[in-house]
Amino acid sequence: MSQKLEKQLAAKEAIKYVKNGMTIGLGTGSTAYYMLKELEQLVLNGLEIIGVPSSENTKKLAIEMGIPLTTLDKIDRMDIYIDGTDEFDPYMQLIKGGGGALLREKVLAHNSNLVIIIADSTKEVRRLGEFKLPIETIPFATANIGRLLNKMNLHPIVRLKDGKNYITDEGNYILDLNILNVSNLSVLEGELKQIPGIVETGLFLDMAHKIIVGKGDKTVTLSR
Amino acid sequence: MSQKLEKQLAAKEAIKYVKNGMTIGLGTGSTAYYMLKELEQLVLNGLEIIGVPSSENTKKLAIEMGIPLTTLDKIDRMDIYIDGTDEFDPYMQLIKGGGGALLREKVLAHNSNLVIIIADSTKEVRRLGEFKLPIETIPFATANIGRLLNKMNLHPIVRLKDGKNYITDEGNYILDLNILNVSNLSVLEGELKQIPGIVETGLFLDMAHKIIVGKGDKTVTLSR
Repeated sequence: MSQKLEKQLAAKEAIKYVKNGMTIGLGTGSTAYYMLKELEQLVLNGLEIIGVPSSENTKKLAIEMGIPLTTLDKIDRMDIYIDGTDEFDPYMQLIKGGGGALLREKVLAHNSNLVIIIADSTKEVRRLGEFKLPIETIPFATANIGRLLNKMNLHPIVRLKDGKNYITDEGNYILDLNILNVSNLSVLEGELKQIPGIVETGLFLDMAHKIIVGKGDKTVTLSR
Repeated sequence: MSQKLEKQLAAKEAIKYVKNGMTIGLGTGSTAYYMLKELEQLVLNGLEIIGVPSSENTKKLAIEMGIPLTTLDKIDRMDIYIDGTDEFDPYMQLIKGGGGALLREKVLAHNSNLVIIIADSTKEVRRLGEFKLPIETIPFATANIGRLLNKMNLHPIVRLKDGKNYITDEGNYILDLNILNVSNLSVLEGELKQIPGIVETGLFLDMAHKIIVGKGDKTVTLSR
């Protein structure tokens, strides 16, 4: 699969920024998986790094791979954060959260000196929104927030898993929003975050310092 | 105790806005308790209302008192929200969250047509901040947010209960902030809510429509 190869190439390129002694925020999802595999190899070869996982899933994988881990409360900032994305646009803005880990991912990215996003070429879009924007909401307020967002023409859909509400690592729900009619994402982000009960959104605005894209058998790096 | 009497008087006055058939958001805390006692009496006398509790504590009290309850997901908006406050200033801005229920309280207030705050006279301040501002944070990010807020000179203190971190109804922690050096609370609110991992703040800005204050043996009502 060329998409798989592109993810691997992007992961390999991202790993070049990892130096001995660094703390690394570890993303979640199918592309981040290849980054973990690369780190596994480097750690086997003697590289000393410490990872901070962005989800219970990534934590589990990293432990299996023998990548040393710590938790965010024990450190101040991370040197690098490496993660995939669901979409990125030419302004290097992102929609994340397809894997449901947007809250911890955003916390880690916010606390990292260098945020590197890795992606296959299908994640590049002219404008964000083909992928639905995930937002994390507290169960207490989710139905109510859904009605409000409906009035805002954002067509929220409660994310399900096995016929039940999908539950995040923090015990919240996910609403997936259609933002194709929204012209100013920064304003949208501010509006959403002011609504009590919305814990976080999957809009990662001005957060990515580098986006490394696998394209066929090479990579292209966008830098801020 | 005159403070107790003032709370009772304010609660009695607030209850006058309650009409048959209304849905009422039920606050949490020592002042809201007197509102519940008033509602208990009205329901005994045949008034038909439905309450939406803002905490597990209030839910328990309301059930004991025989006040019919529903949940937010079953209704669109509430007719009235009645709650206490930790402080209010001459602009009718509030600090809430001393009881740890600020998140659900803010959700309910945000979804109510009339927000009535009841208070004894000790809650009136010239400027907010003698009472520390509570914010609710996810455990994953709390230590990190604490360090960040320390750099912002907000002197965060993790709230404890019986020697352990206080846990909110949503499973989060509370940081209590010193905001006496902050001149623009609206800007502060925006800044805090942009930090990933801060779920909600106890600043209730432009939310109270009426503040009913017990003063000695009478009440004073501020209206927006």
